[in-house]
Amino acid sequence: MTQPTHLRIPGPTPLPDAVREAGGRQMVNHRGPEFKELLARATEGLKRAFRTENDLVILTCSGTGGLEAAVVNHLSPGEPILSVSIGVFGDRFAKVATRYGADVTKLDVEWGQAADPAAVSEALGRMVQEGRPAKAVLVTHNETSTGVTNPLQELAAAARAAAPEALILVDAISGLGAVPFESDAWDLDVVVTGSQKSWMVPPGLAMVSVSPRAWDAAASATMPRFYLDLAMHRDSATKGETPWTPAVGVCFALDVALDLLEQEGYPAIFARHAACGAAARAGLSALGVRLFADPSRASDTVTSAHVPEGVEWPALNKELRSRGLVLAGGQGTLTGKIFRLGHLGSVTVDEILAALAIMEDAFEALGLPVQRGASVAAAAKAAGEAAESRSAATSEAVAVGA
Amino acid sequence: MTQPTHLRIPGPTPLPDAVREAGGRQMVNHRGPEFKELLARATEGLKRAFRTENDLVILTCSGTGGLEAAVVNHLSPGEPILSVSIGVFGDRFAKVATRYGADVTKLDVEWGQAADPAAVSEALGRMVQEGRPAKAVLVTHNETSTGVTNPLQELAAAARAAAPEALILVDAISGLGAVPFESDAWDLDVVVTGSQKSWMVPPGLAMVSVSPRAWDAAASATMPRFYLDLAMHRDSATKGETPWTPAVGVCFALDVALDLLEQEGYPAIFARHAACGAAARAGLSALGVRLFADPSRASDTVTSAHVPEGVEWPALNKELRSRGLVLAGGQGTLTGKIFRLGHLGSVTVDEILAALAIMEDAFEALGLPVQRGASVAAAAKAAGEAAESRSAATSEAVAVGA
Repeated sequence: MTQPTHLRIPGPTPLPDAVREAGGRQMVNHRGPEFKELLARATEGLKRAFRTENDLVILTCSGTGGLEAAVVNHLSPGEPILSVSIGVFGDRFAKVATRYGADVTKLDVEWGQAADPAAVSEALGRMVQEGRPAKAVLVTHNETSTGVTNPLQELAAAARAAAPEALILVDAISGLGAVPFESDAWDLDVVVTGSQKSWMVPPGLAMVSVSPRAWDAAASATMPRFYLDLAMHRDSATKGETPWTPAVGVCFALDVALDLLEQEGYPAIFARHAACGAAARAGLSALGVRLFADPSRASDTVTSAHVPEGVEWPALNKELRSRGLVLAGGQGTLTGKIFRLGHLGSVTVDEILAALAIMEDAFEALGLPVQRGASVAAAAKAAGEAAESRSAATSEAVAVGA
Repeated sequence: MTQPTHLRIPGPTPLPDAVREAGGRQMVNHRGPEFKELLARATEGLKRAFRTENDLVILTCSGTGGLEAAVVNHLSPGEPILSVSIGVFGDRFAKVATRYGADVTKLDVEWGQAADPAAVSEALGRMVQEGRPAKAVLVTHNETSTGVTNPLQELAAAARAAAPEALILVDAISGLGAVPFESDAWDLDVVVTGSQKSWMVPPGLAMVSVSPRAWDAAASATMPRFYLDLAMHRDSATKGETPWTPAVGVCFALDVALDLLEQEGYPAIFARHAACGAAARAGLSALGVRLFADPSRASDTVTSAHVPEGVEWPALNKELRSRGLVLAGGQGTLTGKIFRLGHLGSVTVDEILAALAIMEDAFEALGLPVQRGASVAAAAKAAGEAAESRSAATSEAVAVGA
């Protein structure tokens, strides 16, 4: 098993050395003082990253388990909900709710596009007129399958205005921690993320924040749950424990990674992701690849692009892999049609340039027209401009005292 | 955070160096060829350890998630089941079924005792007479909270005879891989274990085998499930994947640990656990501690004992911890009454002797009467006798061609 050098998929993301070291530490008693301290420290660190004063719990499961927790703890079978989907993961969120018996109204958006706040208002209004007002709105922050970031603040505001009582349940798995996000200021009720994304941690943990409004709903929600019962996690956390044995090694890694992230600082992290995103989009465009996502909503954590004409994804993937670059293919109906370059978590602009250089090489090997060095140069330029415009915006904000 | 030297709890268990190294490896694409190979290899290794030809899937969750999977994939709300409980984890298994709406009849056994096959037959017969024959029997193999190993082969045979159609769902979390276990020969339908027990792997994975009879039941079972859907895991496995992002680092560790276990060989592993169990029981007895479990059913993976008169568990725990020994306290109604010495996974008789030496020291510090060296000597003697009787039994078996 050879280890690829450049893992550029939208999670699992590469682990910094200190995180790897932590993930390989010897076990401790998960009901002892060492773990108790860790759990409290990691929870507080996550709350700072989530920008929330709400309760936050750490579950041992993938992000999908976190989405299921968001649904089953706060809803009852038969309750109407609005599920806003812009891709595979939006569909998955809706599917979880359907499986557990919610009355799901889906707002489907063309893949590659973001959801429109006006459409959300309208859909919620229609549900009220039909006599089945939504108990919850399910929405994706950053859709990993299409490389689109929803205007979550605007979507949440529209939902809150149209259905003031509805819970806003957010899949923030692949964006939170990498791009600006405000759980409390945007009035989000349940926010879910996963350890293997911006957190630079191996997969195995879902982290979920829960608002007082959501806890109220949980008290009477009748969808069955046990392993993913959030209240049991909240109650155990007051004793410094989790109700079931947690993924201790992944928790070690999370604890160290949160420290690394705070050392860098979230504003710097957001700027780094913005620069990497700009570099990826400019570089791929210069390579002659057609980007998939609406440019005004393109994600700064993953860039999606059409597989070039005349080339099959498996063949392209093979050429890339043989050069040590691992990208992700398309999912669902996009399988074979697009590929995705991940740039979240532990990633630098230099690593995006390295990936593009490999892509130039692979494209050439496949007989595609390539102007050597052009994509790397375009990417470097775009990253520089992103950094400049960001620093200009920051100076301006400072100047006006914002 | 100081790392204790002697982690002697019934899971998480200590990690061998090679497993720690694997757990700290760099990430790979969980939908790429490296992970595909690993998943196939680990699954086959686990099937050999489970002694089964049934399908086996690997879930990212704790053992409790595995128990929930065993319930929700094979049952429908309202279906009568018999839940045989001999402790905290038996109660937990029943609670999962209750939460999801099963009609649970509980067979409660006094804690510290094993279940009686005749009582299982009787309970199942009674359910038939009541016109609500059991669709499933839930049973614990090794009860971690009390340190008792159930006579699972006999219990399963009794259940099969009394209710031939009932599924036998087994919590084998803390025994499988450490003591003899035969999934197929004992005709068990669903068998659940957890990575942090005998497997010498960090927590984060539950491994579940599923018989054809259980798959048949799954096809019509209506308890809701998504994250823990076993059929989705089975179907993804045919493509070398898991449906959701797995705990890749824990999978790396499992892959290496299974190799270590097969290098040692399961008969040798069982003998080592038997020797450690004998050492723990003899040593603790010689220390003047009263053992909790029925001696004829005492577990070879965890030994439970009463907290000595005149001493409180927190004070004892503190003395032990200050000497680098971490034991587990009691759970549920046994909190403060018993303590537990874990000896499963990566454990040797020498490590049990070291733990006993520390206990002698701590007991003395607490003013308990201690004959220095006595518990260590008694443990060493018992381990030697266990090894001898085992080797005699093996020779005999070889002599008669068994």
